[in-house]
Amino acid sequence: MAQRKLNFGAGPAKLPESVLQLAQKELLDFNGMGLSILEMSHRSPEFKKIITDAIQLLRELLSIPDNYEVLFMHGGGSGQFAAIPLNLRALSKSTPPSADYLVTGAWSQKAAKEAEKYVKVNKVTENKSHDLIPPYSEWKVNPDAAYLWYCANETIHGVEFKETPKVPEGVNLVADISSNILSRSIDVAKHAVIIAGTQKNLGIGGLTIVIIRKDLIGHQDVQTPGILSYADIHKNESLYNTPCVFAVYITKLVLEWIKKNGGLAGMEHNAEYKSRAIYDVIDNSNGFFSSPVEKSVRSRMNIPFRINEGDEKLEEKFLAEAKAQGMISLKGHRSVGGIRASLYNAVTRKEADTLAQLMKNFQAKSQIY
Amino acid sequence: MAQRKLNFGAGPAKLPESVLQLAQKELLDFNGMGLSILEMSHRSPEFKKIITDAIQLLRELLSIPDNYEVLFMHGGGSGQFAAIPLNLRALSKSTPPSADYLVTGAWSQKAAKEAEKYVKVNKVTENKSHDLIPPYSEWKVNPDAAYLWYCANETIHGVEFKETPKVPEGVNLVADISSNILSRSIDVAKHAVIIAGTQKNLGIGGLTIVIIRKDLIGHQDVQTPGILSYADIHKNESLYNTPCVFAVYITKLVLEWIKKNGGLAGMEHNAEYKSRAIYDVIDNSNGFFSSPVEKSVRSRMNIPFRINEGDEKLEEKFLAEAKAQGMISLKGHRSVGGIRASLYNAVTRKEADTLAQLMKNFQAKSQIY
Repeated sequence: MAQRKLNFGAGPAKLPESVLQLAQKELLDFNGMGLSILEMSHRSPEFKKIITDAIQLLRELLSIPDNYEVLFMHGGGSGQFAAIPLNLRALSKSTPPSADYLVTGAWSQKAAKEAEKYVKVNKVTENKSHDLIPPYSEWKVNPDAAYLWYCANETIHGVEFKETPKVPEGVNLVADISSNILSRSIDVAKHAVIIAGTQKNLGIGGLTIVIIRKDLIGHQDVQTPGILSYADIHKNESLYNTPCVFAVYITKLVLEWIKKNGGLAGMEHNAEYKSRAIYDVIDNSNGFFSSPVEKSVRSRMNIPFRINEGDEKLEEKFLAEAKAQGMISLKGHRSVGGIRASLYNAVTRKEADTLAQLMKNFQAKSQIY
Repeated sequence: MAQRKLNFGAGPAKLPESVLQLAQKELLDFNGMGLSILEMSHRSPEFKKIITDAIQLLRELLSIPDNYEVLFMHGGGSGQFAAIPLNLRALSKSTPPSADYLVTGAWSQKAAKEAEKYVKVNKVTENKSHDLIPPYSEWKVNPDAAYLWYCANETIHGVEFKETPKVPEGVNLVADISSNILSRSIDVAKHAVIIAGTQKNLGIGGLTIVIIRKDLIGHQDVQTPGILSYADIHKNESLYNTPCVFAVYITKLVLEWIKKNGGLAGMEHNAEYKSRAIYDVIDNSNGFFSSPVEKSVRSRMNIPFRINEGDEKLEEKFLAEAKAQGMISLKGHRSVGGIRASLYNAVTRKEADTLAQLMKNFQAKSQIY
């Protein structure tokens, strides 16, 4: 077997090795049942237990209040870009219905674009270079909007909210936390809906998590597809149709791993440590490495940076050197270039330290030649 | 490890053991890359090869003509219940738009119900007891309908079309082949769109296959969610957003297994053999076992039957005896009761024979006592 790489990919991303080992061990025979988890009916009591346990663990780890439901759905974050306006637009006080979007990077931009199919979109704030979050004083919140959408962490641009946006009372706050779920505490009660794909911090592709305040279920537009209708998914206890059983199973294993490894606080401390290791190298490099993002909103999950003010040849060399040392998936997103280190929960402190060391060595060598 | 059960479940269902073994072997290290398939980016060249290979294999095994596209999507068959009207309703010649449905069981019933959100539904034919397909002479096809939907095999009621429905020229025929894909040859060219979930004959939950005639792409309603828009999925080569990478991988392995085991013709011969083994016992039991379905449309994939005209105590006893002999998931769907044997591609001839023998023994014993 090849040695395990140090995987800094942006998602689907690294999983805890113990989760992979357990999944491998159980793959031909789940729990002595004589069949694989891949062959198990989603209506079986055994799978009901898996999905119920996963939801319970998520509730516990995220401290989800009782007046919120957890739904497991198809379609990823992009599916929710349509689901949110379809399910909530009836709450708008304007005609046609409207919704507010905080545009802080590529993903909130995409969410706003999809929403334009269903609502009049008001961009509350937008910094086109996606390197900062404009101050509250500049936000134009529309009191008639159905909801206000924000992306808690922009995977491509590396911009992360350090606190829940302070919005006027009564605003239905919707958060996309796909790329930082369970790496930072979040006050669920301040939100109307929270959505997340599982393929970054919580498992593999094929499962989408929706945390929704109970009173917000049941307002969907009549033309909402069943698979995107919160009412239908809730009524059917997240088994409206066949889910990706395996994705639910892996998420359950990852949640157990998080619980065993210090829970949310443990993950949060790790995220602080790991991101500081990289940002320290950047900040102490005299400009050799540079982060495009304003310091107060730098992401702890995805760190985009440039080398020598965007010297592409040098960046290629860095990527090659990283690869030679077993560090992969460090190339920046094609839309922004450069390097990106993603430090999701499964990435260890040691791995972040190894990358930091590589950066220091690379700078020392590059500046000698 | 517990002995492998004989799994007659209706889906998610049995997988070929060699597929499970390969998946298990590769789970910690895909192709010597030093990472798991579960950790692989959907944008990586390695995954691009997996999805391209899977689509190419499907094209080859199903003899899909060049003027058809294959799309891999989220949301399962139920997602397509909405996607089809959303993408095709513009083709209707009536206002409001209309669509035709052949209702032959629970799944076409559900499809028609979901479509009512988007189109005026005309039920071309409907036999409420779902035990036969009314003759063509009784069908009321609406020439202004956007398309005509049928379910090639009704998983719950065990009703299967033995040939492509003969519809007037120019009708856009849409087939749901979720539960008999690659178990019977199908003339793709006679269809506008063919849809299938993969969790029965072709893999696990989390992947939906759409085969669509190229000229039908691009007619979607403006309010079609991106994840259900054929134009968006096609434009992005089935990577509009993060798919369930693992589900695509498993489907590729199953397609390779089918190719190695006689291809479509091999699967079709097996399906004939296996279903005949069970129906022969039913037909030779002097009414001890009974199939509710009219002989000419009996499914080769899902065989619902009753014991002693629906003697629930005896049926419970049969299920217990089957279980004791390692045969599981034989309970009929809760809406119809009784027994159901699902004989998807991964179920072997020997396993069908074993079930047939159990049935004969059970009858002999029951009639002595």
